[in-house]
Amino acid sequence: MAPISESAIRQAMARAISLAAEGLGHTSPNPVVGCVVLDAAGQVAGEGHHRRAGGPHAEIHALGAAGARARGGTAIVTLEPCNHTGRTGPCARALIDAGIARVVYAVADPNPVAGGGAHTLAAAGVAVEGGVLAEEAAAGNRAWLTAVAAHRPYVRWKYAATLDGRSAAADGTSRWITSAESRADVHRLRAEADAVVAGAGTARADDPQLAVRGVDGPVTQPLRVVVDTNATAVKPGARVLDDTAPTLIAVAPDADAGHLPAVLRLPRAAHGPGLDLTALLAELYERGVRSVLLEGGPTLAGAFLAAGLVDEVVGYLAPALLGAGPAALAGAGVATIGDAVRLDLTDVTRLGPDLRITAVPLTPVTTAPEEN
Amino acid sequence: MAPISESAIRQAMARAISLAAEGLGHTSPNPVVGCVVLDAAGQVAGEGHHRRAGGPHAEIHALGAAGARARGGTAIVTLEPCNHTGRTGPCARALIDAGIARVVYAVADPNPVAGGGAHTLAAAGVAVEGGVLAEEAAAGNRAWLTAVAAHRPYVRWKYAATLDGRSAAADGTSRWITSAESRADVHRLRAEADAVVAGAGTARADDPQLAVRGVDGPVTQPLRVVVDTNATAVKPGARVLDDTAPTLIAVAPDADAGHLPAVLRLPRAAHGPGLDLTALLAELYERGVRSVLLEGGPTLAGAFLAAGLVDEVVGYLAPALLGAGPAALAGAGVATIGDAVRLDLTDVTRLGPDLRITAVPLTPVTTAPEEN
Repeated sequence: MAPISESAIRQAMARAISLAAEGLGHTSPNPVVGCVVLDAAGQVAGEGHHRRAGGPHAEIHALGAAGARARGGTAIVTLEPCNHTGRTGPCARALIDAGIARVVYAVADPNPVAGGGAHTLAAAGVAVEGGVLAEEAAAGNRAWLTAVAAHRPYVRWKYAATLDGRSAAADGTSRWITSAESRADVHRLRAEADAVVAGAGTARADDPQLAVRGVDGPVTQPLRVVVDTNATAVKPGARVLDDTAPTLIAVAPDADAGHLPAVLRLPRAAHGPGLDLTALLAELYERGVRSVLLEGGPTLAGAFLAAGLVDEVVGYLAPALLGAGPAALAGAGVATIGDAVRLDLTDVTRLGPDLRITAVPLTPVTTAPEEN
Repeated sequence: MAPISESAIRQAMARAISLAAEGLGHTSPNPVVGCVVLDAAGQVAGEGHHRRAGGPHAEIHALGAAGARARGGTAIVTLEPCNHTGRTGPCARALIDAGIARVVYAVADPNPVAGGGAHTLAAAGVAVEGGVLAEEAAAGNRAWLTAVAAHRPYVRWKYAATLDGRSAAADGTSRWITSAESRADVHRLRAEADAVVAGAGTARADDPQLAVRGVDGPVTQPLRVVVDTNATAVKPGARVLDDTAPTLIAVAPDADAGHLPAVLRLPRAAHGPGLDLTALLAELYERGVRSVLLEGGPTLAGAFLAAGLVDEVVGYLAPALLGAGPAALAGAGVATIGDAVRLDLTDVTRLGPDLRITAVPLTPVTTAPEEN
């Protein structure tokens, strides 16, 4: 039988990466994974992706769909198959038992607990190859890979502003700076995140619900977190306290928070106002949060940036000018031009009348200290 | 002989539009114009563009290059050929005399003095057709067409800022927010403009030269204008007063400007600080200026926007964040979100690490009152 062509393998991997993406927002603390099983003749026999933490892994879904056609076939997986018995059995074992002859994966598993699947497969006589479309697959798992490496959630800061950087007009009005298309895109970002974080100023000014609305397909509502250091912003009856999703109000150890239902006490920041954001992220990581959507306001975003805790910036720029009103960012700890937080633009997309700009910091971000 | 195909005509017009663009910055108070002459067989016989005010029109250059091959041929011109005898003879007459059988133009001449060439040509038995690639040709002459219609120069506001809308850091440093690629592009904008306008704050903070540097090809240095209402910002020896290009310092009627060499006295603005910008533009129009590059700072840009006198916005956005420092725009007269100056994005281009955003106001801009 003719060997399966390189291009067929890459095509299947591209499909697996796209299947994996369907799991975004549902799988934490696990990564998103996609798998395509080709039969011995190179035809697609089964597909699958990891749908939710605790559920079967991508390989198990794809093997199930392939049935007997998996024998002598090739499994294409976005992440190295796991080797450990967690809530589901090890995938390396399942691939061997199904008679898979060859496994091609994109990204090696960085998780020391689950790692080693490639070795087990090879020892059982399965041909194993890694690194195919590794960059594309890593991009699809960027949040999880960053989180696992840094031992804190991946932080994506989202802001909306005019071309002159204002997030509201002089009188505080901001509905709506950006278009319906941009606002729908923000709900997609929320749906992909494990937690949504906002500050006291935003809670006070906008009384936001911070929940996912209007997104197609199954939604896992993210944990809602408000950094309300002195417990003065979130009032009983606030929309963020409704029953759409769980909520944590992060407050200082000495804050009078008797009126709040779900309080997370955190140390105050060593420098400046607010809470210790490294401690906040450590606490969220402990709870299984691997990705955070930081929705501001300007002061909280500035504190995250000053602490080097922003991994990605997503700006929704409306083609509008205000010339007055609050800026999208404040207090990032930059005093002179040489200390500006420099970024690399990774994507620029038109969304209706607006522009969405995605960028990542050029300097490596701070990881949590070892003792955390 | 086979008639010349539609697509050959359109191709020649596209070439004529690109020829016309070579004149940008050199032809005011005239428009830019390009011309391609095809011989009777449809082959390119001559090309030309209007190079400088007072010099031959595009048609004359192209007819000269075509020589005897123009007889029985087709002239493709971006603007309706002129009919009047100004500093050069009427082009309609020259086309007839050269034996051109057919004239195709893109945009009708809006100038009541020069207009009417199409009629003269038709009366002489020349086949005349207008409107081919009219939109593309009008875009290439946008500044001139806008200026002639509004009886004031076209105003393009250029700014450079970080993603959070800052044009300098908290300590005032701003060199360099944007990249070398962006700064080179600004020199191209200056070269295309008839005048460059800056405010007192910019003159005081940066001592800018406001001249074109590092641009390929012939450069007509734009008139340099500083709006220095109280004559306190531009000092003797300022770089803007060097001999690279002519300079005007616009000051209030009562300003003590004895230390300044070339002063333009203008009335103060009826509302707010600064000068009457409609009067400034009227004065510049009178001097043959058809396009202005407004280089800020934030206060002057805000005054132009508040007066409805900005036709185009070109923003150079650096992928950087500051969180503090002066905003790119101030005092545009907007108090609430419903009054934001809404724009339409017409172009988004990556320039090195930066993003150049071009936009035009959605609401019609103010034209000069009739009595001006």
